[in-house]
This record gives sequence, structure tokens and C-alpha cells, in this order.
Amino acid sequence: MKALLITAIASMALLTISCMENGPNKDGSESGAIFPKGELGPTENFTGKAWNTGLVANDSIYNTVVGNVYFEPRARSNWHIHPSGQILVITDGVGFHQIKGQPKQTIRKGDVVKCPPNVEHWHGASPNIGLQQMYILPKTEKGIVKWLQPVTDEEYNKK
Amino acid sequence: MKALLITAIASMALLTISCMENGPNKDGSESGAIFPKGELGPTENFTGKAWNTGLVANDSIYNTVVGNVYFEPRARSNWHIHPSGQILVITDGVGFHQIKGQPKQTIRKGDVVKCPPNVEHWHGASPNIGLQQMYILPKTEKGIVKWLQPVTDEEYNKK
Repeated sequence: MKALLITAIASMALLTISCMENGPNKDGSESGAIFPKGELGPTENFTGKAWNTGLVANDSIYNTVVGNVYFEPRARSNWHIHPSGQILVITDGVGFHQIKGQPKQTIRKGDVVKCPPNVEHWHGASPNIGLQQMYILPKTEKGIVKWLQPVTDEEYNKK
Repeated sequence: MKALLITAIASMALLTISCMENGPNKDGSESGAIFPKGELGPTENFTGKAWNTGLVANDSIYNTVVGNVYFEPRARSNWHIHPSGQILVITDGVGFHQIKGQPKQTIRKGDVVKCPPNVEHWHGASPNIGLQQMYILPKTEKGIVKWLQPVTDEEYNKK
């Protein structure tokens, strides 16, 4: 009986480890992520740690740039503008998207949000849960991005 | 001791169920999928079951169409052409992409593949594992898709 109990407990432990290793990426962390973590975004454009992986580089055939950003909890982009707008596809975690002059919007796995051309916006992770988000930049012949000022803690925390 | 053993086994069972419920979407099935399953693709354009979810509808601002297709095992699109090409982002499972005149290419979670404008191609799931794939269609002012003939079993099975 004792041997059985030890076997059962050992199996539980193994199962727990296996479950964690293959677990879904609900917190936006690396576990189960679709893309590599990528490169740390520069401090002049991001507050906190945001990791970027380029997926489609700009060219004159598709005129589209695609990539993935993993924002660690509380990390966010500066305010910025895209000359042809931006489409965000949230693949995991929880975060925020805010268009200048509008309330902060909570974004979650499966959400798709758009920011129109030449409109200031920022995006990033929620305070406690990271965010995995793909970005799609269309019509790149008009430009890619113009970086602006950081999102202050007051702006980030505002309900 | 017996009570402990029963508790341990019961915990294992619960953990197993929890692990399965939250398991990753490695087989391209619905479990853990990012997007809803969507609508069944029409038999005139698909062999087997392929489910489409539109994510970004066409408009004159972004001129970009985005969506997700879940191909059940062996399901595939017909041969088809996009006037401005197509970008595929594989978010789960295993499948194939073939450009006319080139060998069939195996595609997996995390892969990004492009098909140039006006080139015949097809995509779909592997024989035993389904495929979750996002599609991005740029420059839609030139058109969206021209559907062609089905992919025969001989073409699908060819190594």
C-alpha cells in the first residue's frame, strides 16, 4: 500500500510538471507561446520590457509588416502614430489599447483591434498579466511608425 | 493510509481532467483555440471540413482582409490565386502549403509563409493533425481571391 501511495504521488508530481510544461499561455508568458520571445524593445519607445519578433519584413510586393510583441506585465509602448493605421490581433494574455481622446480599452486573447491612420495610440500589458499581440501594418509605402512621448503611470493607471 | 491513497488517486484524476481541459491546441483542434471555430467553408472551394472566422473585413482604410481557418485533418483548400498575394501565419497544428510547380511544404505552429500575387497555391491540414492558420490579404483594392480546381488526393498525398 505504501509503495502504491508513493507511485501515486510520484505520478501526480510528473503529471503536474507535464501539465505546466505544456500548459496554455494564459498569462502571456513564454510557455506555449506561438513565436520566439524576440528582441527587447528600446527604452526610448517602451516602458518596461516588451519583446519584438519580426514575422514579415517590409517589401514592395505585400507592402505589409507583421510581427509579434510580448509585453511583460505593466510594459507598454509609447504613444505613437502609424501613417496607414494598425491592426492588432491578441493571441494570449490581457492588456490595454488606447486611442488618444478615448477611454483605455481592455484587450484579451482572440480580440482584434484597429487604430486608424495618423491617430495617436498606445498598447501594452495589464498590471498583472502579460500580453501576446501580433501587429499588422498595411500600406507601408506611406510609412511605418512615428514614435511619440511615453505613456505616464497616470495615463496607464487611469480607469 | 487507504484514505490517503484514495485522495491521491482522486487528485490525480482531477488534475488529469484539468490538464486536458486547459491543454494546448497541438492538434489544431478547438481546445485552447484563439478564435471561434467559425463557419464551414463551402464544398465548391474546400475538400473536407475547413472552418473560417473573419477577423478584419475589407474596407478602403486598411485594404487588408484578415481571418482564421481551422482545417480538420486532411481538409484543404482548392487551388486558388490572390491578386495581391497572401501571408499565412500558423498558430497551431501541422499542415501543408504548396505553390504550383514547387514541392509541398510542411507548415507548423509559428511558421509564416507567403504566396506571391497571381500564383496558384493551396493550403490545408496534415493527414492526422489539424491546422490553425491566420491569413492576411494585402492590397485588396486589386481583388481578394480567384478559386480554381480542387486539390486531388494524388496531389495531396504526393511526397
